[in-house]
Amino acid sequence: MPTIDDVLAKIDANQDRALDRLFALLAIPSVSTDPAHAKDCLRAADWLVKELQALGFDAGLRDTDGKPMVIGHAKATRRDAPHVLFYGHYDVQPPEPLELWQKPPFEPRLAETPTGPRIVARGACDDKGQLMTFLEACRAFRETGGLPCDISVLFEGEEEIGSPSLPAFMAKNGRELKADVMLVCDTGMWDRATPAITTMLRGLVFEEVILRGANRDLHSGLYGGAAINPIRVLSRVLSELHDENGAVTLPGFYDGVEELPEEIAAQWRELDFNEEKFLDEVGLSVPAGEKGRSVLEMIWSRPTCEINGIVGGYIGAGSKTVLPAQASAKVSFRLVGRQSPEKISQSFRNFVKARLPADVKAEYISHASSPAIAVSTKSEALRRARRALEGEWGKPPALIGSGGSIPIVGAFKRELNMDALLVGFALPDDAAHSPNEKYELSSFRKGARSWARILTAIAS
Amino acid sequence: MPTIDDVLAKIDANQDRALDRLFALLAIPSVSTDPAHAKDCLRAADWLVKELQALGFDAGLRDTDGKPMVIGHAKATRRDAPHVLFYGHYDVQPPEPLELWQKPPFEPRLAETPTGPRIVARGACDDKGQLMTFLEACRAFRETGGLPCDISVLFEGEEEIGSPSLPAFMAKNGRELKADVMLVCDTGMWDRATPAITTMLRGLVFEEVILRGANRDLHSGLYGGAAINPIRVLSRVLSELHDENGAVTLPGFYDGVEELPEEIAAQWRELDFNEEKFLDEVGLSVPAGEKGRSVLEMIWSRPTCEINGIVGGYIGAGSKTVLPAQASAKVSFRLVGRQSPEKISQSFRNFVKARLPADVKAEYISHASSPAIAVSTKSEALRRARRALEGEWGKPPALIGSGGSIPIVGAFKRELNMDALLVGFALPDDAAHSPNEKYELSSFRKGARSWARILTAIAS
Repeated sequence: MPTIDDVLAKIDANQDRALDRLFALLAIPSVSTDPAHAKDCLRAADWLVKELQALGFDAGLRDTDGKPMVIGHAKATRRDAPHVLFYGHYDVQPPEPLELWQKPPFEPRLAETPTGPRIVARGACDDKGQLMTFLEACRAFRETGGLPCDISVLFEGEEEIGSPSLPAFMAKNGRELKADVMLVCDTGMWDRATPAITTMLRGLVFEEVILRGANRDLHSGLYGGAAINPIRVLSRVLSELHDENGAVTLPGFYDGVEELPEEIAAQWRELDFNEEKFLDEVGLSVPAGEKGRSVLEMIWSRPTCEINGIVGGYIGAGSKTVLPAQASAKVSFRLVGRQSPEKISQSFRNFVKARLPADVKAEYISHASSPAIAVSTKSEALRRARRALEGEWGKPPALIGSGGSIPIVGAFKRELNMDALLVGFALPDDAAHSPNEKYELSSFRKGARSWARILTAIAS
Repeated sequence: MPTIDDVLAKIDANQDRALDRLFALLAIPSVSTDPAHAKDCLRAADWLVKELQALGFDAGLRDTDGKPMVIGHAKATRRDAPHVLFYGHYDVQPPEPLELWQKPPFEPRLAETPTGPRIVARGACDDKGQLMTFLEACRAFRETGGLPCDISVLFEGEEEIGSPSLPAFMAKNGRELKADVMLVCDTGMWDRATPAITTMLRGLVFEEVILRGANRDLHSGLYGGAAINPIRVLSRVLSELHDENGAVTLPGFYDGVEELPEEIAAQWRELDFNEEKFLDEVGLSVPAGEKGRSVLEMIWSRPTCEINGIVGGYIGAGSKTVLPAQASAKVSFRLVGRQSPEKISQSFRNFVKARLPADVKAEYISHASSPAIAVSTKSEALRRARRALEGEWGKPPALIGSGGSIPIVGAFKRELNMDALLVGFALPDDAAHSPNEKYELSSFRKGARSWARILTAIAS
């Protein structure tokens, strides 16, 4: 059997070709929310199937009502090895606004910086760079003797749109993916030098509301003052979603939200999080959330409401004196604890309805609905992963929360009672979902090395 | 000298070719607010110069910082005839949303309807169809003996964007256009059977405000709750522009607004305006303006505030969990009485500023600024025009207000002390500024006949 040092050396030796492979995947604009990129999503899925087959996986696509799932299975060298399921997603966020990218988002490149080289492209960190760290670890095992665990992989194509096809897929294919533990690489490090294991994930409810007034756009001179303006109504609805203390005003919104257990609160205080620096890096200075809460609470353990988009009337250059027939907004809620996605969605619709004047009708589209997740901090897999990460990074990983949502973690817990281990190598300044998204080359290399160590630790 | 009957007969005889000429002008997409249509605006101006020259006018373009003005002069047959200046505009509103047009907006067509044929195209009524009624009247005079008045014409290319080049143009070229009276054809009839002279026009202040928060778009999961959301701030600002009674809340907004003189109020009551029908035609049932005011007051004699456009964050299909770096809105105010455009613009900016949290900066663009206009109802020109219109339509014209704004009328009054006579043939259902804009063929034909009668009356 090869030693872990052999595997790590192989990862380092493969570095240049690993980057070529990642760039090939990054060049595919697999934007799941945009129907114009449907074929690109299929191309990315096919690319991964081929990649898995080249690594000796029995791999293929599973159709869903949306984007297909990529599935692969491979056996360990020894017979009674533990079985892990690795999860990542091959879809990416839209790259817009394009004019803010220094280079085109789907032309991946290596940029030299004072702190080292970084990979720049849409999806570099979220999630293509991350998922490839795991495949590169598998490759190194293959090339030095074989896998230490039975490994199944699942690559999703709809993570960025709230995983709408997941429930039906789980019902049909869940059992095939049952393993001892689920490994998820879609989270971040604490900082450049400190790895992290994420133990709390917020849930997500994503609603779109469309308000309609007159049966056509009107001339604001001829009708202004007499005809209802849906933008005015929508503004009022949205402005009332928060009170003056930054709390969300939806009735029942905080049902199921509990104060942070002192044990976790204490550990977070030790992290010595710099609120000022966190905000300053994005050009801000004042926390905008609930008064009396720390920034870490705001982004990890408190529920939120954000308006992700709004549009109505004339939005081109110059002026147009139109009184628009409709206006719409995309509004999302991050959930924690036992908040119910269904109840919050309903409460939002009731909230809108209660604020509509006689002549305004509302239409709703639900884009996502998933509850919050808490991962046990006591599991054996987590204990072993902590040791493995400490081996690679020279310090133990922080146990952190994440403001983002990964619906599949909840689904696997619920349906198959599988625990998840969330380890990722993204950094806070990676600009996931933003222009010039990047992934540190060190994250890519040491991420693969970390997975090699974690798999070895789990198998030992 | 030909009789007025000769001239009217000539207008009727020219009808088919008149329509060809109008269609040629309507086919030019002279959208002034869109830089992509700058050349089309020039094409429309050139087309009008050639048309005027063919009618014996000494015509040409006058450059401005924006779109050129079209100017023409022609002499009456007799020496001491009165001098009139006719005004219209060759620019049009953007045609968007294109998907709501039954046929392309710049492919003019005649549509048969139960109430008669109508001309359908962007600009059909606002203002190309209207300005051509006057040129067709001039043509009929030319072809039957000569013009009854000295005639100057001025066709503007920036009316739809608030006439930004007008002040500089007036300073330079105003004297060339000095005449006894200004005839303006950019307003409407009272109804299909009743002509109208407009004696009150609202002013216009059109502001754009752009709010900026973080230095880039953020992931709403990773920053939501902690980072300020400019859409939330903008919503709050916009929602506070009106109070619960529909009144505008800007400090000082109603300075210079007076109650309608009883004489005019009485005449408006006689118009027997059907509020229910007016709203029902556009799919509405409840007046949305100041409580306690009639709909006619809301649209003719009361000032208003409308949000003409809003945009921020992700507005494509599906969902994107972005916390946007900026959001913007276009907000316009219709002014009456002695309201000061400058003061209202300043008050709006102060209003926004007072509602900005520490991390949000505002930028402003002023797209238009013009005061309200009241035309004397006692002038000799108006008296003669009333008689002439009664001759054509069989009933006296209504004296009405208009919610729209025509900045040039104020400029000519202020700079050259010229009174304006506002006569137009648009109908309330013409859908100016909306998809499927139309102009009744009867408006086009009887509009030309009306101008022939008015010019004859002024010259007599």
